[in-house]
Amino acid sequence: MIMSRIEAAPDQDRGDLTERLLAGLPAEAVLTDPDVTASYANDMASFCPAGAPAVVVLPRTVEEVQHVMRTATALRVPVVPQGARTGLSGGANATDGCIVLSLTKMDRILEINPVDRIAVVEPGVINATLSRAVGEHGLYYPPDPSSWEMCTIGGNIGTASGGLCCVKYGVTAEYVLGLDVVLADGRLMSTGRRTAKGVAGYDLTRLFVGSEGSLGIVVRAVLALKPQPPRQLVLAAEFASAAAACDAVCRIMAGGHVPSLLELMDRTTVKAVNDLAHMGLPETTEALLLAAFDTPDPAPDLAAVGALCEAAGATQVVPADDAAESELLLQARRLSLTALEAVRGVTMIDDVCVPRSRLGDLIEGVERIAEKHQLTIGVVAHAGDGNTHPTVCFDAADADESRRARESFDEIMALGLELGGTITGEHGVGVLKKEWLAREIGPVGIEMQRAVKQVFDPLGILNPGKLF
Amino acid sequence: MIMSRIEAAPDQDRGDLTERLLAGLPAEAVLTDPDVTASYANDMASFCPAGAPAVVVLPRTVEEVQHVMRTATALRVPVVPQGARTGLSGGANATDGCIVLSLTKMDRILEINPVDRIAVVEPGVINATLSRAVGEHGLYYPPDPSSWEMCTIGGNIGTASGGLCCVKYGVTAEYVLGLDVVLADGRLMSTGRRTAKGVAGYDLTRLFVGSEGSLGIVVRAVLALKPQPPRQLVLAAEFASAAAACDAVCRIMAGGHVPSLLELMDRTTVKAVNDLAHMGLPETTEALLLAAFDTPDPAPDLAAVGALCEAAGATQVVPADDAAESELLLQARRLSLTALEAVRGVTMIDDVCVPRSRLGDLIEGVERIAEKHQLTIGVVAHAGDGNTHPTVCFDAADADESRRARESFDEIMALGLELGGTITGEHGVGVLKKEWLAREIGPVGIEMQRAVKQVFDPLGILNPGKLF
Repeated sequence: MIMSRIEAAPDQDRGDLTERLLAGLPAEAVLTDPDVTASYANDMASFCPAGAPAVVVLPRTVEEVQHVMRTATALRVPVVPQGARTGLSGGANATDGCIVLSLTKMDRILEINPVDRIAVVEPGVINATLSRAVGEHGLYYPPDPSSWEMCTIGGNIGTASGGLCCVKYGVTAEYVLGLDVVLADGRLMSTGRRTAKGVAGYDLTRLFVGSEGSLGIVVRAVLALKPQPPRQLVLAAEFASAAAACDAVCRIMAGGHVPSLLELMDRTTVKAVNDLAHMGLPETTEALLLAAFDTPDPAPDLAAVGALCEAAGATQVVPADDAAESELLLQARRLSLTALEAVRGVTMIDDVCVPRSRLGDLIEGVERIAEKHQLTIGVVAHAGDGNTHPTVCFDAADADESRRARESFDEIMALGLELGGTITGEHGVGVLKKEWLAREIGPVGIEMQRAVKQVFDPLGILNPGKLF
Repeated sequence: MIMSRIEAAPDQDRGDLTERLLAGLPAEAVLTDPDVTASYANDMASFCPAGAPAVVVLPRTVEEVQHVMRTATALRVPVVPQGARTGLSGGANATDGCIVLSLTKMDRILEINPVDRIAVVEPGVINATLSRAVGEHGLYYPPDPSSWEMCTIGGNIGTASGGLCCVKYGVTAEYVLGLDVVLADGRLMSTGRRTAKGVAGYDLTRLFVGSEGSLGIVVRAVLALKPQPPRQLVLAAEFASAAAACDAVCRIMAGGHVPSLLELMDRTTVKAVNDLAHMGLPETTEALLLAAFDTPDPAPDLAAVGALCEAAGATQVVPADDAAESELLLQARRLSLTALEAVRGVTMIDDVCVPRSRLGDLIEGVERIAEKHQLTIGVVAHAGDGNTHPTVCFDAADADESRRARESFDEIMALGLELGGTITGEHGVGVLKKEWLAREIGPVGIEMQRAVKQVFDPLGILNPGKLF
């Protein structure tokens, strides 16, 4: 259990809290049944403790969120903001006695503007819902986390989440132009803009993106959109070693190509997928690379990338002829995590990002760590970004295996830092990596980050125990 | 004169300050001759008062910058960081008795890495120097302010500056991955990363970008690079009204095109350029639109954009056949500011950015304001961004005309806000627009921004009197 660090105001008890919340929220928006509230305790991370919420609120309006925050401030009750709880770092886990503030009912798309190429949305809009809605206007919202059919834009903003698109289109942060934020004390603040450019004052918008609900509650976002690109065409390349596949990645990126996707699966992942889905990938495949282009004429790029893969030692290069074949090739990638889960029942997904020139060193190091701890660790990577997801497979019922899993998870982060990387490319810090944040950004950085937190949340009620 | 708001520590006088600075800086890096230091008082903005620096320092190392900041903190002396002083908002103007901290001697490119697509640079590197250096590796650093042959990367970061490239490539902020910053008290802090992605902790990198030297001194930057695109091909279109040209801009952007440049000159600017350079633009041209594409095959886009211009009422559409013709067409745009300066001797360049769907309303409003104040105001615009530079032409020797110029300048900002825009798309707030910042971001925003400033600069010695 994570204990709240906030000293409760004298008059706080659950009854009073609920009563005060009900003064500004409809009854159906305030959940107190412990069986129900317990179901809001966790996101999808392993190894992250969670407390028991005092209450779960589901506001539908900005004013209701303001009421929740005013109440929380008055009673000194911690508030844990939540989207769809698909996060992988425990960032949305409840703390004992907290208000879980679920933004899932604020799910309206308020505006889609094809001339200004923006959408204005509430935080509870599902990523896939927005993607499809803007698609109908010929527009494209690139960020595509694996959980895109479930996760919310608010959650994506909280964690600055990424996806397969990032090698060409970047992470969520790139698409957030402006925010409406309810501050800890209930006041409403607007940041940013709805114009293509704007540099008036400090960039508080970007400060909120990736702040994991620790600075304020995002209640509205202005998002930048791109024109819908042509459907991407995929090429798959098999390699006899991970090193050769990483060499190909370096050649592709140094060669000036801009793939819309550049994914790598290591031998462990390829084997797991083969075992699960009988996809007929050859046993000799030690690494599989998938590259795609979404330009009007992808043929020259695909040919050049195929040649670069062969020069790097690819044993087979398979370009797709059309969108349907491309989808087939991507199936293996999409099945990776499910397949790795099947290995030992549970997985712990790391999120280390290294300079792409060090990708080969990272994968080699992970193999070493897996051998040392006698564990299966598969690596799937957004290779074009150097963003790897080493996935530790373990049996949660086996205490020693669980301990070794956690140790190897940490050793992978240490290796990432050693290679000039970061402990998190797109999943966030949450509870899972907070000891590691300090190692990455150093004591001066931590001191300044804490001071910034203090500015926005002087009482420390916003998602306490996360990040720091 | 801008008076410093800092109460001087008891032991401060210029002699002591200089002596202390010389303890950690070579003699040639400390300038005290008032004739010399006076030449560092201003950037390129009109109507911005400047004070007399006590001393100008030109450090060459991070340690020297740390020494300057430690000294400034000990003596409570304000520090005004400067790049090449090409800014247009007075953000680099000296305050009385300050240390001008010129970063121009820290001008080394430390690394260019084509696989990781990054450059690591010191702040004094000239934008064009970097652009050419990365070009030799087949790479591209997009931000291209008009002053690119003179301005420094540090200055670009301070103001989050833009340029002609932004409609496709965005502003400087998009290209800053990580920073080394010397804090007000002389401590060194690293922010961000050298990886393609990274979401560990609050995004302090972006907080520093555009902070106009008010939060710390950038001494090193990791910059993202793109592959060098093909040379762009330009199309020029003449219109019988600004409204028709703006309609064309909306059709182009709603049509899903991604031009590498989309610039507009209004009738006043066209006439000024014609008068200056005898370019033979027809007298009937009320607006000139320039669009460019830098894709491998720009022909289909250029044809489609030409057709959209004609549908919007273009009187003539002139596509360039090659790069040389493209350069000729861009000449008119490049001469705009020089031509407008020639009208009355002095100009005051505004920087209002509106949603591009409101571009026509902005230009029409500027015409109304020009008429009301009996002034010549030419509009050149990064039309694809909605970022306009209404340029007020006036005779600085004529007090009444100067007053009307300032009034019209302010009225243009008010109009921009009314249209859902921002007071600055790429030039920054500085001294020129600080009263306007509060109007744009509101009292809560200003309060939080001031509190953030307080975190990084508790003594208020960093570029005082700017932004707020």
